Amino acid sequence: MSGPIVTLLTDFGLRDGYVGAVKGVILSRCPAARLVDLSHEIAPGDIGAAAYVLGQSASYFPPDTVHLAVVDPGVGSRRRGIACRVGPQRYVAPDNGILSRVLDCAEPCRAFEIARAEAWRESVSPVFHGRDVFAPVAAHLAAGGELGELGAEIEVDGLARAGWPEPRREADGRIGCVVYVDHFGNLVTNLTAVDVPPEGELRVAGRSIPRGRTYSDVHEGALVALVGSSGLIEIAKNGGSAAALLGAAPGHVVTWAARSRS
Amino acid sequence: MSGPIVTLLTDFGLRDGYVGAVKGVILSRCPAARLVDLSHEIAPGDIGAAAYVLGQSASYFPPDTVHLAVVDPGVGSRRRGIACRVGPQRYVAPDNGILSRVLDCAEPCRAFEIARAEAWRESVSPVFHGRDVFAPVAAHLAAGGELGELGAEIEVDGLARAGWPEPRREADGRIGCVVYVDHFGNLVTNLTAVDVPPEGELRVAGRSIPRGRTYSDVHEGALVALVGSSGLIEIAKNGGSAAALLGAAPGHVVTWAARSRS
Amino acid sequence: MSGPIVTLLTDFGLRDGYVGAVKGVILSRCPAARLVDLSHEIAPGDIGAAAYVLGQSASYFPPDTVHLAVVDPGVGSRRRGIACRVGPQRYVAPDNGILSRVLDCAEPCRAFEIARAEAWRESVSPVFHGRDVFAPVAAHLAAGGELGELGAEIEVDGLARAGWPEPRREADGRIGCVVYVDHFGNLVTNLTAVDVPPEGELRVAGRSIPRGRTYSDVHEGALVALVGSSGLIEIAKNGGSAAALLGAAPGHVVTWAARSRS
Repeated sequence: MSGPIVTLLTDFGLRDGYVGAVKGVILSRCPAARLVDLSHEIAPGDIGAAAYVLGQSASYFPPDTVHLAVVDPGVGSRRRGIACRVGPQRYVAPDNGILSRVLDCAEPCRAFEIARAEAWRESVSPVFHGRDVFAPVAAHLAAGGELGELGAEIEVDGLARAGWPEPRREADGRIGCVVYVDHFGNLVTNLTAVDVPPEGELRVAGRSIPRGRTYSDVHEGALVALVGSSGLIEIAKNGGSAAALLGAAPGHVVTWAARSRS
Repeated sequence: MSGPIVTLLTDFGLRDGYVGAVKGVILSRCPAARLVDLSHEIAPGDIGAAAYVLGQSASYFPPDTVHLAVVDPGVGSRRRGIACRVGPQRYVAPDNGILSRVLDCAEPCRAFEIARAEAWRESVSPVFHGRDVFAPVAAHLAAGGELGELGAEIEVDGLARAGWPEPRREADGRIGCVVYVDHFGNLVTNLTAVDVPPEGELRVAGRSIPRGRTYSDVHEGALVALVGSSGLIEIAKNGGSAAALLGAAPGHVVTWAARSRS
Repeated sequence: MSGPIVTLLTDFGLRDGYVGAVKGVILSRCPAARLVDLSHEIAPGDIGAAAYVLGQSASYFPPDTVHLAVVDPGVGSRRRGIACRVGPQRYVAPDNGILSRVLDCAEPCRAFEIARAEAWRESVSPVFHGRDVFAPVAAHLAAGGELGELGAEIEVDGLARAGWPEPRREADGRIGCVVYVDHFGNLVTNLTAVDVPPEGELRVAGRSIPRGRTYSDVHEGALVALVGSSGLIEIAKNGGSAAALLGAAPGHVVTWAARSRS
């Protein structure tokens, strides 16, 4: 019988002792827990990026996994802590939008405020709820605790959201934008294969981008637009960084026209 | 029944195969071991930073955890290897000061030299004791071996230390310094809340820093001094890096005056 | 009884959700798997570096470990996926040379094409075989599946190689090169202690490099050539980066002359 899985997603970085302290607290309270890092390299305070990364990876884990997600610039202020069940999985996080992409899925969801101090560490630092509040709560759930023991149930509709803009529909096309730039310099957009079929013209940074199925469908160094691994349209450079080539970052406009200009 | 926990703290970085080799050796000799990374991003040879990170995280782990700490610029020279019990936990490391913060705690401590080659790998590279000496010793302890099997007991008082300076007491204040800069650019000082009560004036880099409880007690972009998560006074910027704003690094002077100048 | 070990080596980086998704897929299909990261910081598409890192670390793991190695710039193209047994260990990877150093060892080897879709995820993204093909195949093997269930056996001699050049033998010496630069800035060469005995003169970047056993055999800041932890000659700077000091990178020439010039 394998132990319960707890994943961790933070902006703590890997250099300091913060992630280690969080893991120590979880293992002290749920000795059988199996810890899996999603990422600790979210840019400090970048809730939108954390929400995207969580949405991109959490659902691949087995049922009953507990996902601990702490990008928490408002730590120690009055923002709530929340624990949710979304489909077969559970999430522990500050209520600041970090669960936006997870909540967007069609799975049934219930949410509870993290309010009762019984599950926390005895002494709580106002600047490290990851270690002193969220980690022990995640361990409590992993060890078999119930969401309802943490605090009152709250409305899912009232949870904070940090979404990205919907693409704008025009008569003859769509106006979307870059929403995430990955480690390879691939530009993830808010456009889907349904929004922008292979016909027509996709443009970014003044360039028309040919469509493909995979990176090597274009010659090395060339740009290609394809359906990325999370189902969104991505703009990539075969053998390099599209972000560097185009000077593009989140927010950069990407347009699709049903008829190409030429 | 969960396997024994072995944590790892090194300056090996995450790009090469060094950490993997160490983990392979541990798992080959203690197949039940559960490995947890504290950090592998300590700056090469920075024993003081490693000591701080270890002190900040190791004590949160369950009793009997084995902490393997290898920042070892003197590898292959005559510096000793040591294995210690400090309170309920065990540590395996070079005797170069990396355990300073751990030894500073009030827990009872016993130390043994790593001298008997029986527990080591058969062939020992003079430039990789992490893999060939310390990893097998950590596995030996995790698998139920005794400290006394590794070599002779040694005086704890004789262990190397890499401490930081104590703050200087003045009639009307304290003179301390920055001892660590974390991933967020927060400046950790050697001053405690006892040294520098909230009254009076804290100054760094020519600026007076207001006191707060958490980051968002000041407006975004402003500096705040607070009691950090390890109990030391930290200077932080809400939503940014205090280190970048102030150009501050370890050693930078931080003063507290019982009466503010103004 | 401890669960099967699956190691991961990729160029996915640690910032995005790619590694998390791969781990989720493995744990969903082999819940007992124990995951160990070798590295996710291989430079994007750098198959040679990945081959070196894998060769440097994989063999230290226990028998039956499954090593999942995905640096895969040709993802979705016609390059094959392969699963191999090399000695007591198993490897799952694209057939692009990433296993070169592992295959160079003298262990008996059998290789199979990853061809039958039964072991894959139902829906396969053409840009993320790591998640949709290689991860489920690794989980299948870790869970007790056989290599022969994945596809037809193939000739080991036909597998792609991404080797580095052999040193050139001259009457009075050897001409080798730097093949890898590690995190510390140490220059790993393709020369062995047999190629270049301690007598004679080793030169790189116009400098004669003294031989030593370990870093501290020379004074701080000085260069030293020694037998590195993987048995190859390395050029290091005591307390710093030889790569930075010499401006050296992979491909840089390193010569050895049986008689020193002076």
